[in-house]
Amino acid sequence: MKIPEILLIETQHKPGSLARVLQVVGDSGLLVENLAAIRRDQDRTIWELTLEFDEVVDQALVERIDGLPESRVIGKSDRVFDRHRGGKIETVAKVPLNSVQQLRDIYTPGVARVCLSIRDDPALVREYTNIANTVAVVTNGTAVLGLGDIGPQPGLPVMEGKAALFWHLAGISGVPILIDEKDPARISDIVSAIAGGFGAIQLEDIAAPACFEIEGELRRRLDRPVLHDDQDGTAVVTLAALIRAMGQVGRRLEECVVGQIGLGAAGIGISRLLLRRGVGGMLGTDVDEAAFARFEALGGERSSLAEIMRAADVVIATTGKRNLIPPEAVRPGQVILALSNPDPEIEPVVAIRHGAAVAADGKSVNNVSGFPGLFRGALDAAAPRFTAAMLIAAAETLAAHAPEDQLVPDPLDRSAHRAVADAVREAARSS
Amino acid sequence: MKIPEILLIETQHKPGSLARVLQVVGDSGLLVENLAAIRRDQDRTIWELTLEFDEVVDQALVERIDGLPESRVIGKSDRVFDRHRGGKIETVAKVPLNSVQQLRDIYTPGVARVCLSIRDDPALVREYTNIANTVAVVTNGTAVLGLGDIGPQPGLPVMEGKAALFWHLAGISGVPILIDEKDPARISDIVSAIAGGFGAIQLEDIAAPACFEIEGELRRRLDRPVLHDDQDGTAVVTLAALIRAMGQVGRRLEECVVGQIGLGAAGIGISRLLLRRGVGGMLGTDVDEAAFARFEALGGERSSLAEIMRAADVVIATTGKRNLIPPEAVRPGQVILALSNPDPEIEPVVAIRHGAAVAADGKSVNNVSGFPGLFRGALDAAAPRFTAAMLIAAAETLAAHAPEDQLVPDPLDRSAHRAVADAVREAARSS
Repeated sequence: MKIPEILLIETQHKPGSLARVLQVVGDSGLLVENLAAIRRDQDRTIWELTLEFDEVVDQALVERIDGLPESRVIGKSDRVFDRHRGGKIETVAKVPLNSVQQLRDIYTPGVARVCLSIRDDPALVREYTNIANTVAVVTNGTAVLGLGDIGPQPGLPVMEGKAALFWHLAGISGVPILIDEKDPARISDIVSAIAGGFGAIQLEDIAAPACFEIEGELRRRLDRPVLHDDQDGTAVVTLAALIRAMGQVGRRLEECVVGQIGLGAAGIGISRLLLRRGVGGMLGTDVDEAAFARFEALGGERSSLAEIMRAADVVIATTGKRNLIPPEAVRPGQVILALSNPDPEIEPVVAIRHGAAVAADGKSVNNVSGFPGLFRGALDAAAPRFTAAMLIAAAETLAAHAPEDQLVPDPLDRSAHRAVADAVREAARSS
Repeated sequence: MKIPEILLIETQHKPGSLARVLQVVGDSGLLVENLAAIRRDQDRTIWELTLEFDEVVDQALVERIDGLPESRVIGKSDRVFDRHRGGKIETVAKVPLNSVQQLRDIYTPGVARVCLSIRDDPALVREYTNIANTVAVVTNGTAVLGLGDIGPQPGLPVMEGKAALFWHLAGISGVPILIDEKDPARISDIVSAIAGGFGAIQLEDIAAPACFEIEGELRRRLDRPVLHDDQDGTAVVTLAALIRAMGQVGRRLEECVVGQIGLGAAGIGISRLLLRRGVGGMLGTDVDEAAFARFEALGGERSSLAEIMRAADVVIATTGKRNLIPPEAVRPGQVILALSNPDPEIEPVVAIRHGAAVAADGKSVNNVSGFPGLFRGALDAAAPRFTAAMLIAAAETLAAHAPEDQLVPDPLDRSAHRAVADAVREAARSS
């Protein structure tokens, strides 16, 4: 998996010195993610150069830069780590505490009257606590990003990141819950036992197939919304991108045959939502027999990569396998979403060159656009669950709010998140 | 249990009108907790009158006030409920989110590098997440305040109150965890499974005897501090009060026989800490045979109320039974802490009148003084558990910071909380 590494590089003020550094980077086969001057002295500049690296920095690159006459690597930047220092979230009081009277109101003895009011009318817990604004972000760390089973504590920065996004994009209190357990039944029991303290549950980075059993079981047992972001969050943004693409090619999704390559968490989530939305046909393929069974249980039709490329109007790939789709297999006019990060099953530019009408990868079709508004809307409606209608309403709203040249909105576009929340809330209330 | 009720009363501007209202209140046997003018017009004032009531307001009182010529009850104040509306805490982001670069640093792809650093060096989770500043406030709602088994959700306002105090008094993120379960073994399993997401665990309002098994089991299994506030938090402030009282009577605790009346969560916690600190003798009594067994296992000596009143230099009562101690049983020179709230086993003024050297109740010896600094110190030291030395250091520091005329510091005295935290941290490090 590619992860950014940030080098600090000093260049002397000679025309072309920066270009030569970037040429060395390019010759090493690396992409520049970002470049910023962080200090400019009389005769030299220090640059923060963000590169996509494998886990370990290539020492040869450092030596090649140091070999240039006017430049040297002076170290690595701690920018990403600095932004994580002390954590990215915190739980704070909303109420002041400056007097004994305030203490006696928010704690004993005053709080007792609020407790009794909730005992007598359980619905009041939504009014007198933060519960209706709280989402548990639950993981066991078995499928963190593309890093695999690194464990719950190493996954905590992702959960805190999710919680920070919840706060910034939807005003929701996200509470990371790390579960040190892999057995799906025990995880379901644990989450069920503590779910009463949260308005909704987001399952996150739990590996397939455990994630299917856990999500299904929790949906059956709990009276509050449960969403596995890797399944349904991905499905919503994918459907949004497809709706958008359909507009661009002038076709209707109901008439299109869709081929889903890869039937893991994302593939199953996407297939389930598309089948609920209605498509002209739903083909799917995987290397795992159990995955086929799950797909067929949803109503999908077993297929192969070659057959999908031949027969499908829309191809969606979520395999994690770089360059899996041979460019010559692309059929003219196909819509291709190759969503594996960081390396898609086919580069969009390559797909377009071979005749695809629309092509995109997972960088432009990203979950961040979906989950904040989905949960905001579900909480605001006090919905007992996420329904297909809520997910579809979210996807349609995202599609409507995408800029002219994109398939989904910018993830930092607050108005899009607000619109998704409104649409989800209305869909929940009318169902 | 007495809970404040706040009446809104209008009085006309005639000298003596307010006095007559308060006379009616006094004649009804009620104490005034607070009185504030919230609106003053040309000819009348509206008062917010806070009274200690039983669960239901006495309608006869309202009628008596309405019967006065210049006053009437215009309703109840929502002040306490208003302060709870929407909850008392929230989880917020500590990091800004205004640019794509910030998003890419705090979430994917940047966060992956932080995850890997923790995978490779687990101790870094304290540096790059909020975990070292986070305490789970865990309850199953079986012994909420004096209200009994009202259930986890009705108990949530207390947990949010605790979290709000954590934030204001110690800068700690308190995270309420409601467990819908009563079996101690299952509760221990659930807390163990999710403990990895928190720096420490506070058990709260869990009924005896389940609380003893849960606390003991979690202390054996977890590598982070666990404190049952109703046991150890109470023990710390009680020991602080005793140290202070010893100074006032010029005696040493090591030479005093202590009698503990009531061997529930608080009584057992107090006995355990006093036996670790060292006392001249530890007598105890209860109505429950299992409670005696727990007390004797700690090294205490089975006794009776009458024998304790005869033999003990220090009497501590935590029974919940009003006026349990007959005034004539008080021995001259005794130190008496009758801690049950809201009604002590003997009123301090009565005990003093019958010869007690020092007497106090649970209003002046309150847990709020203890737990914030205890957890702050334990987290700052990265302590794996609370030791007796840490609890004793906290008690001694509280005693040293109490104002001249009090046994423990004001609960809002931030400097006392800071001093407790420092003392606990140092005690943790030197053990």
